Amino acid sequence: MLRVAVVGASGYIGGELLRLLIGHPRVEVTVATSNRFAGKRVDGPHPNLRGATDLTFVANDRLAEAEGSFDVLFLATPHKETMGRMPEFLGLAEQVIDLSGDFRLRDPQVYEHHYGTPHTAPELIPTFTTGLPEWHRKEIRESDRISVPGCMATAGILALRPLSEAGLLTGGIQVDARTGSSGSGISAGSSNIHAERSGAMRIFAPNSHRHQAEITQSTGLPVSMTATGVEAVRGVQVLCRVQLTEGTDERALRRAYREAYADERFVRVVAQKRGLYRLPEPKILSGSNFCDVGFSVGDEPGTAVVVGALDNLVKGGSGNAVQCLNIRQGWPESLGLEFTGLHPN
Amino acid sequence: MLRVAVVGASGYIGGELLRLLIGHPRVEVTVATSNRFAGKRVDGPHPNLRGATDLTFVANDRLAEAEGSFDVLFLATPHKETMGRMPEFLGLAEQVIDLSGDFRLRDPQVYEHHYGTPHTAPELIPTFTTGLPEWHRKEIRESDRISVPGCMATAGILALRPLSEAGLLTGGIQVDARTGSSGSGISAGSSNIHAERSGAMRIFAPNSHRHQAEITQSTGLPVSMTATGVEAVRGVQVLCRVQLTEGTDERALRRAYREAYADERFVRVVAQKRGLYRLPEPKILSGSNFCDVGFSVGDEPGTAVVVGALDNLVKGGSGNAVQCLNIRQGWPESLGLEFTGLHPN
Amino acid sequence: MLRVAVVGASGYIGGELLRLLIGHPRVEVTVATSNRFAGKRVDGPHPNLRGATDLTFVANDRLAEAEGSFDVLFLATPHKETMGRMPEFLGLAEQVIDLSGDFRLRDPQVYEHHYGTPHTAPELIPTFTTGLPEWHRKEIRESDRISVPGCMATAGILALRPLSEAGLLTGGIQVDARTGSSGSGISAGSSNIHAERSGAMRIFAPNSHRHQAEITQSTGLPVSMTATGVEAVRGVQVLCRVQLTEGTDERALRRAYREAYADERFVRVVAQKRGLYRLPEPKILSGSNFCDVGFSVGDEPGTAVVVGALDNLVKGGSGNAVQCLNIRQGWPESLGLEFTGLHPN
Amino acid sequence: MLRVAVVGASGYIGGELLRLLIGHPRVEVTVATSNRFAGKRVDGPHPNLRGATDLTFVANDRLAEAEGSFDVLFLATPHKETMGRMPEFLGLAEQVIDLSGDFRLRDPQVYEHHYGTPHTAPELIPTFTTGLPEWHRKEIRESDRISVPGCMATAGILALRPLSEAGLLTGGIQVDARTGSSGSGISAGSSNIHAERSGAMRIFAPNSHRHQAEITQSTGLPVSMTATGVEAVRGVQVLCRVQLTEGTDERALRRAYREAYADERFVRVVAQKRGLYRLPEPKILSGSNFCDVGFSVGDEPGTAVVVGALDNLVKGGSGNAVQCLNIRQGWPESLGLEFTGLHPN
Repeated sequence: MLRVAVVGASGYIGGELLRLLIGHPRVEVTVATSNRFAGKRVDGPHPNLRGATDLTFVANDRLAEAEGSFDVLFLATPHKETMGRMPEFLGLAEQVIDLSGDFRLRDPQVYEHHYGTPHTAPELIPTFTTGLPEWHRKEIRESDRISVPGCMATAGILALRPLSEAGLLTGGIQVDARTGSSGSGISAGSSNIHAERSGAMRIFAPNSHRHQAEITQSTGLPVSMTATGVEAVRGVQVLCRVQLTEGTDERALRRAYREAYADERFVRVVAQKRGLYRLPEPKILSGSNFCDVGFSVGDEPGTAVVVGALDNLVKGGSGNAVQCLNIRQGWPESLGLEFTGLHPN
Repeated sequence: MLRVAVVGASGYIGGELLRLLIGHPRVEVTVATSNRFAGKRVDGPHPNLRGATDLTFVANDRLAEAEGSFDVLFLATPHKETMGRMPEFLGLAEQVIDLSGDFRLRDPQVYEHHYGTPHTAPELIPTFTTGLPEWHRKEIRESDRISVPGCMATAGILALRPLSEAGLLTGGIQVDARTGSSGSGISAGSSNIHAERSGAMRIFAPNSHRHQAEITQSTGLPVSMTATGVEAVRGVQVLCRVQLTEGTDERALRRAYREAYADERFVRVVAQKRGLYRLPEPKILSGSNFCDVGFSVGDEPGTAVVVGALDNLVKGGSGNAVQCLNIRQGWPESLGLEFTGLHPN
Repeated sequence: MLRVAVVGASGYIGGELLRLLIGHPRVEVTVATSNRFAGKRVDGPHPNLRGATDLTFVANDRLAEAEGSFDVLFLATPHKETMGRMPEFLGLAEQVIDLSGDFRLRDPQVYEHHYGTPHTAPELIPTFTTGLPEWHRKEIRESDRISVPGCMATAGILALRPLSEAGLLTGGIQVDARTGSSGSGISAGSSNIHAERSGAMRIFAPNSHRHQAEITQSTGLPVSMTATGVEAVRGVQVLCRVQLTEGTDERALRRAYREAYADERFVRVVAQKRGLYRLPEPKILSGSNFCDVGFSVGDEPGTAVVVGALDNLVKGGSGNAVQCLNIRQGWPESLGLEFTGLHPN
Repeated sequence: MLRVAVVGASGYIGGELLRLLIGHPRVEVTVATSNRFAGKRVDGPHPNLRGATDLTFVANDRLAEAEGSFDVLFLATPHKETMGRMPEFLGLAEQVIDLSGDFRLRDPQVYEHHYGTPHTAPELIPTFTTGLPEWHRKEIRESDRISVPGCMATAGILALRPLSEAGLLTGGIQVDARTGSSGSGISAGSSNIHAERSGAMRIFAPNSHRHQAEITQSTGLPVSMTATGVEAVRGVQVLCRVQLTEGTDERALRRAYREAYADERFVRVVAQKRGLYRLPEPKILSGSNFCDVGFSVGDEPGTAVVVGALDNLVKGGSGNAVQCLNIRQGWPESLGLEFTGLHPN
């Protein structure tokens, strides 16, 4: 059994990591840290794990004491804080899988622009591999430092990159992202109390969202993203307007997706002519590691709408991280990630 | 124009008072207090009031300075804190309408049992009139001190009292109350964040809820109440199991309700044989001052289910308070309370 | 009292017309038609009207028999069917206010393109006035035939036209519309059952929606619209990406909105720097006749996001129709439309 | 691989059977019937199964032609219709697992009372075993005919029977059941469209629900049940008021549950003093085969509230059926049922 530690394990991303890793047939979770819940049972803040584990949290600063009891370190720690502690983390385990935003952007300037603070460990950035298996599988196989992309970025990249890669896109991309409430985390604040958030269509990022920089980084195309909180707990959907290069028709788009994803277990192309679920819908993806991608060619020649959907806590974070782990270990890629999602849900 | 002040005006009950009083044709809101929002516009925390008012909040401790600028004081202040400040409030205005829980229960012992602290102003309790127009209209007409009942209590009393009054009930009553999230107030906490509260069926009071004491006080019958938070922002529904005295049939129940409420504008008897809305449903009551009450006679002889539903912030609080004001002033009772509720909603 | 009839009164738009007209101080509803509910009480399918009316439905084909008992005819009849019956309707009342889609588009070719069938009464189209008070008040004052715009179109036009009118926009507009479930009407079908529609992010119109033609007609600019059903019963929000003419800055945008809407009772400009409700949010508009409009200037020079929000059944339909009635009758424009909306909701 | 057929596979229970059986490591689904979708792919109405299966539906009346291609028959067919076709089904497979309501009640008179029609195959009733593993494991092991209990019945029986079995209960039981919308099935009707069902607290069975008969049959105690539809897609919760025999205290209750369920994989006792999830909450059970049960001792001596929660489509139906299959085949009981449920959700 591979022994793993999860740092920052009491939040929603941390909890989802625990769910997946505890259910994983070749992994044993030996350490889960949380300052707030130190000494308490893991199944307190994560009641879905009742019966699945007797683990208790340890305080973050006691992680070092546990050195030697884990082989891989998963970081579900906050943005901005993670980069400062990264040297410590790298000293504790040979393999580190980081789910924070701190090592996603290759260019420290871009990081500073989007996170509002200079990057304090720019020299470490190039040592990290982008943890998106569909486009970086080969590097992941040999990398000990993996940085898992953001949830909306993952949906956007998986939806767009087959087209950019095939040279079918031209000009800028407009992304309208919609997200459930779990994306804003477990900490209570006036913005996420139920009476205010319920049934909302809250445009919290009208002009630009930091995940757009990741999409640009991956596709090479300028992206302008809005983000709206809608009623859902889990789920991200990106609706992307694209300009097609001349001569690109529906068949060309479909071919590009097929070529990119025919052998991918966790990306499904959903682009049907009719039906309630003819385009990607996050509602049926909760708990699953799928990212569904699809498209619809516009009435106006040369335009299309491209859609991506996923569970922000799974393929948009923890599930993706576990998929990277499987790849790095040389295990079957879907180990521990077989859940298909529910319908109705 | 009657000048009124609202103390504790930044919460949900306070905001609803402002909405109703600002829209009231014979009332002018001159003061709205809030410590948290002192100096800020009222339409900040209450964005539905944009365009309706330019009022700003003043700090609570500056209420005294405003003396003379209001005739009636509405208190949307916290339980336990209100009783301590009541002497001050009573010195500031001739009429006080209290929406806290502190002066609802006539017996200080019962208060202590349910609120977990001794009552600090028991001598004031008898000076307050119960602000439930349908059963205390005559006293309200002449009272300068009114205590508005709790939201679930109002639903329960309005549903049950016609039967207890007519002597149709025997034995104890079991009340299962269901409530939306606005009842837990505007303060953020781990219990009311969206991701935890959304879609919940949270039995937060499995054995006893303080509002049951108010129902017992009004009906004279022992009540045991459970309370469950379900998915809704506004809305309370009580489902009450009752034992009927011998010979009481459906006709007798219907007659009791008709006699109690035939002339009541804000209580509708909803007890049909079929239809989606054959029993009281809070979903269509949001924003309205209605309490719908209904019943269904059981298969087992001598039993019935009695149901009450209302908007916890309106008939369960602020609307009821405004109705009391109208009565006290000798105005038409529905002034400012004409909104019928929405369907669908 | 002005006597009015509502044709097609058992649907959601019809029910909302009844709610507003029954509550209107100068109107009496004398006829409400419905084939499905002929002979049944109006408060059956519209349970929120219990206690407000004793009206019963008459069958559609008995409308002619009621001639003389109404002065104004409101049509909440289906698209495509309405144009065929329009000559009959026009013979029955001097004033007709049509809420169907059949007389919104001035160009029959455009109608045919978007509704998939030729227009059968093209000669009548120019006799109708667009029922959008903020931009057609003068014509409405003198018009006996009014065609109320579509819900998303209303939100889009009110949000965009101040800018197009002021010459601040250039190029095409991308509109992403989000809508609640009431927009798809009261008829049950596999697409709107709760288990499928709940929590959805359903892109039902990925490339083009018929309401976009109305926005183009009003603003003179090419529009490409997507539409997504999200979790809500009422509510439409449009998020529009626009290109600004050179030199147009935030101040210029704000000025354009102020000039257009400073005196408008039912349009509020909501464009704040912070706060949960800093941009238009339909959640707090349910039941109200407001359309909130706002904007946010982009990071990229020359771009902005423009937002409109409303209750699709009120300002997006029935409320707008009543506002037109008030204007046509020379009454205060907000008569019967004073409800401010609820928060929280 | 065991070959199974699912009859009535296009509904929600049928879809959930397919999800679980397709994911089951020792089962192959060879036939799925549906009249409505005959010839269409299974992943049309069940879009969560995309990528998991290429199966297509066959018409119900072609099941006989497929004889020999399946070893076990799962019936997700309608109540009342199933009993008529049962002889046919029994002729087609050695093992039949029935999820309809037709063979749950041992007494045909009770069936007739609750289903409103005489039982047409009463002689077959005693040949069926109740498919509730926790209380009938031994019989299930050897039975070829299994009848899976109703969803609310399962929650009620699992919550109550440890206490009735231990002789801790006296008198009648009042059950207040709450349910999500998937329980009313996939067929569209006016009662389950989103705009009507969303946010509802619809008491659709105020006095009696047919599942109460199953609870009485299992516990031997009189039960009176109300049922309310609340906002959720999946999920059933029963809140049961019980009378305790003299001397029964909290310890006795806890002991009874422990004795009943200490070794049960799919029943968790959730009865904590604090926490949002201190009592069973269906929200975190979606997709899982757990039934959480708990209790809270009342203020009034001799009373307690007992709670059960489950996913109506899994432990309340299809998951339970698969668990029975595993037992009957002598396989590990949790095969194919390992999913823990999600939090948040």
